[in-house]
Order: sequence, then structure tokens, then C-alpha cells
Amino acid sequence: MTQLPADLLELAKNVIAAAKAGKLKIAAAESCTGGLIGACITATPGSSAVYEGGVIAYSNTAKSRLLGVPRDAITAFGAVSDVVASAMAEGILAETDVDFAIAVTGIAGPDGGSKDKPVGLVFLSVARRNADALVKRYVFAGSRTDVRRAAVAAALELLHSQMLDHAEDSAAQDAGR
Amino acid sequence: MTQLPADLLELAKNVIAAAKAGKLKIAAAESCTGGLIGACITATPGSSAVYEGGVIAYSNTAKSRLLGVPRDAITAFGAVSDVVASAMAEGILAETDVDFAIAVTGIAGPDGGSKDKPVGLVFLSVARRNADALVKRYVFAGSRTDVRRAAVAAALELLHSQMLDHAEDSAAQDAGR
Repeated sequence: MTQLPADLLELAKNVIAAAKAGKLKIAAAESCTGGLIGACITATPGSSAVYEGGVIAYSNTAKSRLLGVPRDAITAFGAVSDVVASAMAEGILAETDVDFAIAVTGIAGPDGGSKDKPVGLVFLSVARRNADALVKRYVFAGSRTDVRRAAVAAALELLHSQMLDHAEDSAAQDAGR
Repeated sequence: MTQLPADLLELAKNVIAAAKAGKLKIAAAESCTGGLIGACITATPGSSAVYEGGVIAYSNTAKSRLLGVPRDAITAFGAVSDVVASAMAEGILAETDVDFAIAVTGIAGPDGGSKDKPVGLVFLSVARRNADALVKRYVFAGSRTDVRRAAVAAALELLHSQMLDHAEDSAAQDAGR
């Protein structure tokens, strides 16, 4: 039997294929997904060719100590914020030699939500060398399991699309346009 | 639907309960399990009370850069060895403020095995403050999924039993024996 959802494993395979095609190394900084992104990527044999590893920064202390997220940013904007998401992505990029990094921070629930920041709120960020980090905001519905699963799917899709865009940009530059 | 095996989630709940009872913080350093230990622990609401986070040190570079595993040790003994397992556990302990850390390194397969180090070979290590790290060697049968799953189960069981032993030792010391 398989232990992870087949649709997530397919998305992870797309990420691995795009990374291999672009000769890109990748890493992940995970909070609310707790390691699921890494687990889905490494479920595929040969993922070690592109996946360096990552940090599961579940507590605020871990976000600061393992990823260098400024404590001031967590205090000012909250651990679930666009600022912290991009700091996590840039942090794992700084701690490794990878070309692309994905970060996720969110409120999986069932507790921890508020009016401004409801359960299901998730920020994703993709960082790469010599470019500003991209941040996207999502609100996913459902249970803790549903939110985590949706966050993993969105993270893998966003990382995949960003690597494809990068490949197109590189091809365009190579063509001298 | 759930996305992780129920038996692993139960083992993770035992770990969380023991950590809460002992007021212990925990972290994990994962190689072949790729984040599954963190994913299982964080599947339970409230796990943030005891689980700080962890490092997924999939590549040798990540083992050195994120966990401080000496490159010489990886060269001399291999990434899948008792020496590297304990260095990973002590590394995550050094990088965080936790009381207990579990580390796992192994060969999930289907490739990467040899006569001396077959597919399914896994080393687990538990480290805690002011004590030598414990290391255990396992050889699990089956597919890549089977090996990873068995490694997660064994890791959660070992961490749990070590925390219980620690609690008994502490109680004995408190009783003045």
C-alpha cells in the first residue's frame, strides 16, 4: 500500500522532472505541512538528484534558529504572514546551495484561527537566486488534514510553475531576445 | 480521508503524550524518511506544544550544512552509518533547544544497496542533553514505501521508549534512590 495520496505524489514527480530538466536543486521550508512536502518528493526514487532537503520550522524558535527568520518580523506580522513566508524561503535558500526553495506557513486548525487569520489561511513563497521571493496567499477549506493536503498540493504546483517559467525565461535569454 | 497510516499516527500520538507528560521538547533529523516523522507528529493538533521542528537532511551536503555532520565522517563511514546517525541526532540537538532528538538515515531503495549495506538498512539515533546518543541498527524488508514506513514506526517507538526510560530515571532520582 502507498502511504501518501497519489495526486500529491504525481505533483511531486512533476516537480522532480522539471528540476531534473532544468538541472535545478530544490529545498523546502515547512511549517504547517510539517514535512509532508519533503515526504512526497522523497517518495520517488532518484529524488536525491534534485532534492537537497529542508527545514521543518514548526515553532517560532525553529523559524528563527534554523531559518534566520527575524524575531521582529514574527512579532510584527505573525508567523502566518507574507513577510515570514518569504523570509522562510529566503532563509532555506541561504542555508543551502539550492536554486529554488519553497516555503509554507499557515493555520491548519482546528484551533489557532482568528477573524483576520482564519483556519485554512496559508502563505506560500518561492525563492530563487538573484530574484525577489514570490508570495501567494490562500484560504483552504476543510479539516486539518484537508488544509495540510491542499497546502502541499498548492506548494508543489507553485514550485513547478515557477521552475517552468524560469526555464522559459532562460530559453528566451539564450535565444537572444 | 486521512493521508497517513493510522498506526503511524497512533505511535506519533504516544510520542506527543510522553513528551507532554515529561515537559520535553522534541525534534527530528530525517534522511531516508524525508519528513514523514515530522508529518506524522504534526498531524495531531496541539503537537506544537512539544515538537519544535526538524531538518530533512537528504543530501550529504545538507547533512553537513544543516546539521554539522563532519564531512570526514560521511566519507569514512558513509551517510548510512551509526556514526552519521548519532552525529545527525547530536546536530539537531545543537541547532535547537529541545530535550530529545531522533535521527534516521538509511537506504530506502530500490537502488543504492550493496552487500555490506543492503536496501532496508536503517540507523536510528536518539540524543538527549548531557548523555551519549543511542544508536540502533535495523534491516527492514520490502519496497521503498515499506522501508520508509517501518523506519518511521521504529523511530517513533524508539523515541517514545527513551522518553519513558528518562521519565523513570528522573522519578527514581527524585525519590532519592
